[in-house]
Amino acid sequence: MPYFDAASTAPLHPVARQALLAALEEGWADPARLYREGRRARLLLDAARETAAEALGCRPDELAFTSSGTAAVHTGMAGALAGRRRTGRHLVVSAVEHSCVLHAAEVHRRDGGTVTEVAVDRAGRVDPDGYRAALTDQTALAVLQSANHEVGTVQPVAEVAEACRAAGVPLLVDAAQSVPWGPVDGDWSLLTASAHKWGGPAGVGLLVVRKGVRFAAPGPADERERGRHPGFENVPAIVAAAASLRAVRNEAAAERDRLAALVDRIRAEVAATVPDAEVVGDAVRRLPHLVTFSCLYVDGETLLGELDRAGFAVSSGSSCTSSTLVPSHVLRAMGVLSEGNVRVSLPPGTSGADVDRFLTVLPELVAEVRGRLGVPAAAEPAPAGPPAGRVVDTLGRRCPVPVIELAKVITAVPVGDTVTVLSDDEAARLDIPAWCEMRGQGYEGERAAERGTAYVVRRLS
Amino acid sequence: MPYFDAASTAPLHPVARQALLAALEEGWADPARLYREGRRARLLLDAARETAAEALGCRPDELAFTSSGTAAVHTGMAGALAGRRRTGRHLVVSAVEHSCVLHAAEVHRRDGGTVTEVAVDRAGRVDPDGYRAALTDQTALAVLQSANHEVGTVQPVAEVAEACRAAGVPLLVDAAQSVPWGPVDGDWSLLTASAHKWGGPAGVGLLVVRKGVRFAAPGPADERERGRHPGFENVPAIVAAAASLRAVRNEAAAERDRLAALVDRIRAEVAATVPDAEVVGDAVRRLPHLVTFSCLYVDGETLLGELDRAGFAVSSGSSCTSSTLVPSHVLRAMGVLSEGNVRVSLPPGTSGADVDRFLTVLPELVAEVRGRLGVPAAAEPAPAGPPAGRVVDTLGRRCPVPVIELAKVITAVPVGDTVTVLSDDEAARLDIPAWCEMRGQGYEGERAAERGTAYVVRRLS
Repeated sequence: MPYFDAASTAPLHPVARQALLAALEEGWADPARLYREGRRARLLLDAARETAAEALGCRPDELAFTSSGTAAVHTGMAGALAGRRRTGRHLVVSAVEHSCVLHAAEVHRRDGGTVTEVAVDRAGRVDPDGYRAALTDQTALAVLQSANHEVGTVQPVAEVAEACRAAGVPLLVDAAQSVPWGPVDGDWSLLTASAHKWGGPAGVGLLVVRKGVRFAAPGPADERERGRHPGFENVPAIVAAAASLRAVRNEAAAERDRLAALVDRIRAEVAATVPDAEVVGDAVRRLPHLVTFSCLYVDGETLLGELDRAGFAVSSGSSCTSSTLVPSHVLRAMGVLSEGNVRVSLPPGTSGADVDRFLTVLPELVAEVRGRLGVPAAAEPAPAGPPAGRVVDTLGRRCPVPVIELAKVITAVPVGDTVTVLSDDEAARLDIPAWCEMRGQGYEGERAAERGTAYVVRRLS
Repeated sequence: MPYFDAASTAPLHPVARQALLAALEEGWADPARLYREGRRARLLLDAARETAAEALGCRPDELAFTSSGTAAVHTGMAGALAGRRRTGRHLVVSAVEHSCVLHAAEVHRRDGGTVTEVAVDRAGRVDPDGYRAALTDQTALAVLQSANHEVGTVQPVAEVAEACRAAGVPLLVDAAQSVPWGPVDGDWSLLTASAHKWGGPAGVGLLVVRKGVRFAAPGPADERERGRHPGFENVPAIVAAAASLRAVRNEAAAERDRLAALVDRIRAEVAATVPDAEVVGDAVRRLPHLVTFSCLYVDGETLLGELDRAGFAVSSGSSCTSSTLVPSHVLRAMGVLSEGNVRVSLPPGTSGADVDRFLTVLPELVAEVRGRLGVPAAAEPAPAGPPAGRVVDTLGRRCPVPVIELAKVITAVPVGDTVTVLSDDEAARLDIPAWCEMRGQGYEGERAAERGTAYVVRRLS
């Protein structure tokens, strides 16, 4: 079954499995102990640290192993913020960071700190000037991902790092998505990563704190990992993580071009063969293996279910697929359609044949899902008469119904006049303006209604 | 090589290895995803939770998997303290808890909370009345280990839990050492454990929070593990942890008696064949597999090194073996000798032949180490003349030298008179009184000296 969700977690790399098995034999003991088994575990741990540090471009004593990428981010942010508390309590993040960064920012805000979210463009990319403008003499820390986990857009880390250096502010780079492909450019101060994203085992995060960065580890004291991550070191998993990172990097040059070409094929074919689909994220400055698109008039959860039945494991930022009922904050920050959203992230070794099969199956499944919702495969939904009082009531109905109902009535509205959609579905806030943009209609804004929200659309054509 | 340090970490159980390998195949995907691989990982995770919950005697939805026992303790304590913050900010712990508990207590104190440490007797056991007396209407949480990790003494958890219930205070039980042997008795509220202590893989801790216990998870929000532990679930390791816990429990009844008999043999033989050794911890109410003893006039690090060369991996609470220069807080709280301290903790499957060999080798090695320090194998050090001004200056010299120097001069002191030992070694504070107790001499107390501390001893016999 083709697994196209490497950005969630990559299948275990064969080198990781091999190293894990060997290290379960040789490295299971406590590396803090002085007897032979302990010394052996310590040697393996030290060697793994050397290997991983080399891959990340840091000194071994700057690298701590944590229990996950999330733990690395939480500790990195809390430690850097605490270390510079005297400077100030201002934090700068981008609007499209991983939720673990935004949740840590939320804790900082709750604890009395302030947070600036730097906006992104429609491709999901921050402007270095946005960071430059956000930095103040109270700024304790800035955080930026190396590349976005949902749409693959690569961020201008080196430029932002330069702006941060000039302002004397440390930059933490969340490199979870890009580390398999190469070291992070630029003069960053802290860096985090997660082994299961490159085919290492779960349970290993990486936290780099450059020498000279003020850092006060949060939480109870612990002598492990230089006080930066408490608890018994998971030496076998760390060994497997380091060995597989080296292996993945050795394969990266070849896989990068091959997967980038497959993704280009997906980008082109989806645009050409799936009507009313929007491919999102930067087409050029992007991760090699990741592409995201959204499909009008499609329920994301149903589409994912159909793709699963057809043998494809993909992910989605649609609200319809999550229990939160809120579309992905990344798509919201970009202002792009979230309806029928599909993220395809190819693991190394993905075959062109599997991608071809995906591209054959996808338009059929989109057509099928649309058909069930009363939308013809390649056209607008059948037009309906003008709505009473120019208001389309979709209260209680979930994405993609509000947009479908809007599309049904728009032709009954005189050009130049407006129609109002009433909706209590969070996705409508993103998808109605996105539909207007795709259809060349005028989005006039929203206002609170007695129930839900009223979205006003002006017919322009 | 006989590995006698199971209390630090147990070798991987064969069932853990087998389950880990299977789950690396079947359970590597993200259990939050809806496609087939994700659903499969979710099923494995749910089944592991059922298995582990049954072994712990709780409901599956009361159990969260964390990344380590330390993480479980930190989160459990912080969450319970925050959940009852309105009641008060008083925390009760025993003086012999694992350092991760005491470090979390330290953070609580630093944040403005108060902490009461309940003392232990010479066997390392708390008195339930000690807890009863410590609880106030401001007490937010009490913490007690099920059994001590350094000396094996089993704590009266059920009685303490009853006292806590009566006072309306939740009790968190750190069950890391006892969980392999059986569920924890009594009406406790929270429980923590660590898989690598029973032969499961590293990287899996367990946190039980009983229904109805007020709990506010610390740190940034995260949807994993009911918000109680952030980051990608390590499903393969969790599966291996649960499977091996069940296996270890199935073997526990037979191993318990066998290892308890081996430990009885060690207790008796060490007392009989190693002169001036003190076996510490409760002889009866103890973990089956663990015994600790201390040897006068022996440098713990040297003895561990000799045992390692002879093929035995053991641990120690002596200051001489750690970089902190402070003897174990457990031995200090018990008021027992820390010199030449050795902890033997037998993993399941330990053979009687290995234990016999250990018991043959140990007295020879102790004698050898003593010989190097100028102490005859089975006697006091050669007596020296009376010290000038009745003061023995051992400033700058480490354990066991201060006690050896004291033993050398005591016979030159008239019965009824005192001698003063000057020392700047932290171990002396524990070991000089312990020597007096072993030798029937009078310990008169300590006072600050111009350099180091002056310990006053009265010759009684």
